[in-house]
Parts: sequence; C-alpha cells; structure tokens
Amino acid sequence: RINSARLWDSLMEMALIGPGVAGGCNRQTLTDADGEGRHLFKRWCEAAGMTLGVDSMGNMFATRPGTDPAALPVYMGSHLDTQPTGGKYDGVLGVLGALEVVRSMNDLGIKTRHPVVVINWTNEEGARFAPAMLASGVFAGIHTEDYAKARRDLDGKVFGEELARIGWVGDEVVGARKMHAMFELHIEQGPILEAEGRTIGVVTHGQGLWWLEITLTGKDAHTGSTPMTMRVNAGLGMARITERVHQIAMSHQPGAVGAVGQVKVFPNSRNVIPGKVIFTVDIRSPEQGKLDAMKAEVMRAAHAVAAELGLGCAIEDVGHFDPVAFDPGLVKIVRQSAEKLGYSHMDIISGAGHDACWINRVAPTVMVMCPCVDGLSHNEAEEISPDWAAAGTDVLLHAVLEVAEV
Amino acid sequence: RINSARLWDSLMEMALIGPGVAGGCNRQTLTDADGEGRHLFKRWCEAAGMTLGVDSMGNMFATRPGTDPAALPVYMGSHLDTQPTGGKYDGVLGVLGALEVVRSMNDLGIKTRHPVVVINWTNEEGARFAPAMLASGVFAGIHTEDYAKARRDLDGKVFGEELARIGWVGDEVVGARKMHAMFELHIEQGPILEAEGRTIGVVTHGQGLWWLEITLTGKDAHTGSTPMTMRVNAGLGMARITERVHQIAMSHQPGAVGAVGQVKVFPNSRNVIPGKVIFTVDIRSPEQGKLDAMKAEVMRAAHAVAAELGLGCAIEDVGHFDPVAFDPGLVKIVRQSAEKLGYSHMDIISGAGHDACWINRVAPTVMVMCPCVDGLSHNEAEEISPDWAAAGTDVLLHAVLEVAEV
Ligand SMILES: NC(=O)NCCC(=O)O
Ligand SMILES: NC(=O)NCCC(=O)O
Repeated sequence: RINSARLWDSLMEMALIGPGVAGGCNRQTLTDADGEGRHLFKRWCEAAGMTLGVDSMGNMFATRPGTDPAALPVYMGSHLDTQPTGGKYDGVLGVLGALEVVRSMNDLGIKTRHPVVVINWTNEEGARFAPAMLASGVFAGIHTEDYAKARRDLDGKVFGEELARIGWVGDEVVGARKMHAMFELHIEQGPILEAEGRTIGVVTHGQGLWWLEITLTGKDAHTGSTPMTMRVNAGLGMARITERVHQIAMSHQPGAVGAVGQVKVFPNSRNVIPGKVIFTVDIRSPEQGKLDAMKAEVMRAAHAVAAELGLGCAIEDVGHFDPVAFDPGLVKIVRQSAEKLGYSHMDIISGAGHDACWINRVAPTVMVMCPCVDGLSHNEAEEISPDWAAAGTDVLLHAVLEVAEV
Repeated sequence: RINSARLWDSLMEMALIGPGVAGGCNRQTLTDADGEGRHLFKRWCEAAGMTLGVDSMGNMFATRPGTDPAALPVYMGSHLDTQPTGGKYDGVLGVLGALEVVRSMNDLGIKTRHPVVVINWTNEEGARFAPAMLASGVFAGIHTEDYAKARRDLDGKVFGEELARIGWVGDEVVGARKMHAMFELHIEQGPILEAEGRTIGVVTHGQGLWWLEITLTGKDAHTGSTPMTMRVNAGLGMARITERVHQIAMSHQPGAVGAVGQVKVFPNSRNVIPGKVIFTVDIRSPEQGKLDAMKAEVMRAAHAVAAELGLGCAIEDVGHFDPVAFDPGLVKIVRQSAEKLGYSHMDIISGAGHDACWINRVAPTVMVMCPCVDGLSHNEAEEISPDWAAAGTDVLLHAVLEVAEV
C-alpha cells in the first residue's frame, strides 16, 4: 500500500500554488503559478531519484529506470493545470498519485523490468487555451505543434509565447517517446461512484465531445428608441440557442449532456441591444450516434435561430473527440488490482475528457477513478477524502507493478 | 438661421476626442477623453464670451448675460459623454447646437432679457456608471450626491474619485441654480422621423423606464461529468429570462420595448456550467400602466425561472423614471418655431431617457429632435445630415429667443 499521509501532504502543498479565492485553485496553464507548480513537481521527482525530460510542448516526463534496457517504459500521470475556479484534485491527484507510486516503490525497494515514468501533461483543462488536452493531443498526433502553439487565450496571448515566457519549452520532440502502456488516475468529477457507494471506478470508456464556438452578428442599437420590430438582437439569439442546446441534450437522455459555458456580449452596455455575441457550446455522449446527432441538431438549431432573428451566424469547431474504448487488457488488470486490494469497484464511463483519451490512440491506455464529494468538480469546493485518494493510488500502484513486471 | 457649417465643424472636431474604432466615439464619462472634451468645450464657450460655472457633480454651465439682472436664465444643453460604441451626435448635438445658438446670437448682435446658459450634463449615458442621467438626476433632487458619487463602474472604480481624477469637481452646489426654462436638442435615436419624412420632432412626452440588474446563483460544475438532472445552471436561467423579457415587451405592443444588454457569466469557462450570472434588463413604455405591468411581469418571470431551475435570484433596481409629459407651453413654442421656419414636423415621444426628463421635475422643460439615419444610435455608425442638425438648431434658436425675450 502507498503512503497515504505523504500523498495527502503533497496534494495540500501543491494547492498552495495558485490558490483560488474560495479554498480551491486557480493555477491555469502557462501562468506564473503553473511555472511554480512545475518547479515544485520537478524538485519532488528529483528527490525521488528520477530524471526529468521535457518536450517542446512543455510535457514533463520523470523516469525511474527499469532493469531491462530494451523494455519500453510504463507511463502514468495526468495534469497539474487547473480551471480558473478549479479544485485541488482534478488532474493533480493523477500526477502526485503517480509520484507517490514511485516513492512507495523506492520505500519498498521494488525493481521493475520496464522503466516507469511520471507525466505532467501541459494544458489539459483547455480553459485558457482551447481545446482541452492540447499537449497530449499533439503527442498523439491529433494536432500539429504549430496549431497548438498558435492558440490564443481571451486576452489574445499566444500559447507558444506563454510557454516560452514561463520557461518550460523542453528539447524533446513531442510524441517521440514510445509507451508500453499509459495509466491515468483521476477523480470522477461526477456523482456516480459516491451514489453507488464504490471506491474505485474501472474506466472502460470515455465520452466523446464537440466544442463549438458560435458568433452571432446583429446590430448594436438603442434599447429605448429602437422599436421591437426593427431589432437585430444577437443577445436574444444567444439566449434561444442556449435553451436549444439544453433541450437537445435532454432529448437524448440518458447518455448525453450539453451546455453553454462561456459568453461574450458586445458592446455589453445595459441600454444597447447586443450587436454581437460569441459563446461556446459543449456537448457530449459516450455513444457515437448520439454525439453525431447532437452536433447536427445544435448546428441546425443555431442557424435556424439566427435566420428567424436576421442574425449572421458563424460556427467554429474548437475541439472534438469521438467516444473512447480503453485497452481491454489493462481494464482487466485495473479491475483485478481493485479486487485483490479489497476495494469496492464498478465499471464506469468517463464524463470528462482526459489526456488518456488521446494517448489511447497511440498506446494501450486505461484510467482509474476515485469518487469526489457530490460529484462536484470545476468548482473550488471540489473535495475528496484521503482514503479515496489512497485507494485510487493503491490500485494504480498494483496495476502498474503488474504491467511493468516486478 | 444658425451657421450650419460652423456647427458641423464643431461636431467633427469634438468627435476627434475619444475616437471609436469604427468611425464613432468612445468618450465615456469621467475618462481622460471626457476631460479633454470638456476643455475644448470650455475654450469654445469662453471664445463666445461666456463665463463658465461648474458644480460639484461636474455639470458645466456657460452663461451669456441678459439685460435684466433679475431675470432667471433660460438653459439649453445635453451631454458630451458617449457610449463605449457611441456616435458623434448623441448628446453632443444638444450641447454644440446650444453653443451654436449663442454664437449666432453674437453674430447677429441679439440681446435677450433673460440670460441664456449652455449646459453639459455629466454622465448622461449611464454606460459606465448606472443609472443614466445621473448628474441631472442629482440636480433635480432625484438622487443624493452621496449616492451618485459612490457609483462604481465594472472595474470597481468610483464615480467621485474618477470625477476628481479628471479635475472637474466644481464649486457650485448641485441644483442651486433656478431655471426659467430648459431646452434639450437631441437626435431621435429611433426611426420614426425619417420614416415619416419629417425634419423636426416636437417632443411631447418621454418613455418611462426600469433598469434591473439580476443575479442568478447556481453551482459551478463540470459540463461533461455532471448529469443533466444534477445541474443548477445559472446561464440557462439567464437565457430563459432574456427570452421572457423579449416576450413581455412583445405582449405590450405597441408602446413597449425591452432587452437584456449586459451579461457577465462566472466562471465563463467552456467546460464549466455557469455557477453565477449577472445581467441587466432595460424595459420601457410611455404608458405608466404598461411600465408598471412589465416591471411586475419581469420580476415574476425571473423568480419563476429561478425557482424552476433551483437558482438563487436577486433583483436590484439600478434605474427608474416614470413617463414624462413636457411643459405644454414650451411644446407649443417649439411647434410654432418649426412651423415659422418652414420645417416639416410632428409630435413625438422620446424612446430614450434624457437629462430633460429629470429637469422637467424642477423647471418647465422641452426637447427638440431631429432624425438620424436608419434610427441607429448607440452604435458607431450613428449618422445625421448637416441639414437635419441645422434645422434642429434653428428651431432651438427661435424657441429660445421667444422664451428668453429678445
Ligand atoms: N478532466 C477535465 O476536466 N478535462 C477537461 C476537458 C473536459 O472538459 O472534459
Ligand atoms: N439618450 C440616451 O441614450 N440616454 C441614455 C439613457 C437611455 O438609455 O435612454
């Protein structure tokens, strides 16, 4: 078993970097706080005897050597970046849990044939630079590095420049590493494990998603003196499409979600009819058919609303992945590890996107989940228990030892 | 007749201060640009032989003496501040048209029994600091000066501090001046005069309005992993209320308008269900009964939407005035002046709020309107013709001379 107290202390220490305003974290990718968090992680890895490699997307790989020089490494990790109103565990548990696995292997003097590598993926959240899982996406060949580096945040700052600014452009070629397997431990970010009273989620699949950015163009005009019939109100269009996204997701229950998360209104003045609105849509399903149908329905609804109000309508795809099926062999090993350790468990589908979803395209991959209180995540109040964290990390340890061959 | 070319030149010169990005102006109240515009106006007034007084709200009063020391002055003016995406004429025509009236009186050597005073009211727009017509409201005793000075913009900057920062806190007591009459020339900001082919609007009434600021509180949560049934989506609530505001205004046609103009979503991240939204509602009618009914319906609808989604709902009144009937005697004088000068005219109700709406509470007040292209205002593309500007200013000249007694 891993050292639960040490794991918890590390989680709490990392949470002090980029603190939020309500007990959580705001350590968004490529901010100064992200840079500081990376330095702390590096110090911890080196103290655990690992050597750090960094690729040109800023992905960090800390290696514990194996006994067989020819054996491909077994990877495990997640991300240290957070949402603007993020919790202390989303991503962080997967990185520091992996670190704790290595620390425990050191304590116990365990040697493995395959090297084991702890990863921190850059910009998993996608909150600052869309899309999410950007750097693991480049690693898996989904995006080009040029595309990723040119992404801009809401202030117009450029990904590549911000990565250089915080000093984390490494010299490794992105995606050059070959993986024997990849494990990601993560909090569920949903309510199912807690509701079912299970400690471990064996993640068999991941939902697919579409992220759309819709720009509606109307005509700024005076709210008081423009008759109702002469308005071209982009804000009203946004409102109608927001409702339609909700209805479309509801019509595909169960197994579908959807919402509008980000809204920018122009000129955003109380007595001006909005002349332009830019907003984002997030729709997901674990079923390819539902995902495709929802995408088509949202597009149709947006164009129909725009047409009925006389608005211009441009829809940009800013993120997409299809539903994922994780490696059946690894899924079985995770299930057996939970069983062997005596943890209650169930098979589960990930509602969120994860770096593992992209890495699954280039290496056998699997995820381990543990519950979070009230299923709450992307909220500073996100909470887990030390026991849940330890259970997930124990399962990770045993599954990794199995695959890395003690 | 006034000097049309001089008036137009002054309008164009003022428009160079705080230029917009698309040919209009962004000279929001109490910005550096507002300060610069005030200095230009002051220089012009002094060049026309007037003496300037400034009150502690920054309202500017430039006086041309009359022949009778006991006679109360006749006032005329409007505002030099603009919307963030403002036009070159909204407010500005009323100030510089009044200045042109004095310049023409000087040219023609006209003396009046009553002094005439040109006014620039502070913060008419209310875009930066709600409510609109703030300083004329203090002048008319509607708001206390303390209330006005404590207003904050979206960045948290305080009205009183910003007024001091640009150096326009005067020594006059606000509202101490007594007025024989007050005239305000303004562009219509609506489409009626142009559609009816009339050059002059004789403004008999002004719409009443309510400005509400609604805060909906839900729960930030992950858009992917939170089931539809467990969401408390403040953004969806905002969307539904936006639609309801539109429907309520439509149900009171003709003679009612309503829209949501300003929206702030928290945390405004594409994969987070909005946990909080703050947005503004603007509803208006020239009929007291409709205005009251719309206010009640919007409040009820907001609370009902919040209840159906499980949201917290707080509604703040940030601005309100009842429908206005301007002084019948002055209305008649404006109508006769238009008639005498041979301009086509019609009676009209102001759709927008104006400083005249407040001053009407403390002095006989009237407004003169001229058309604007496509009824467009609060938009950088706002446009008028030099002939319309001259016609409105001619009518202002003749009406003021009548009341100020040549
Ligand atoms: N796990 C997580 O929150 N990832 C961000 C991408 C997503 O929204 O699913
Ligand atoms: N005239 C004008 O735009 N005033 C601002 C207040 C309002 O919205 O009516």
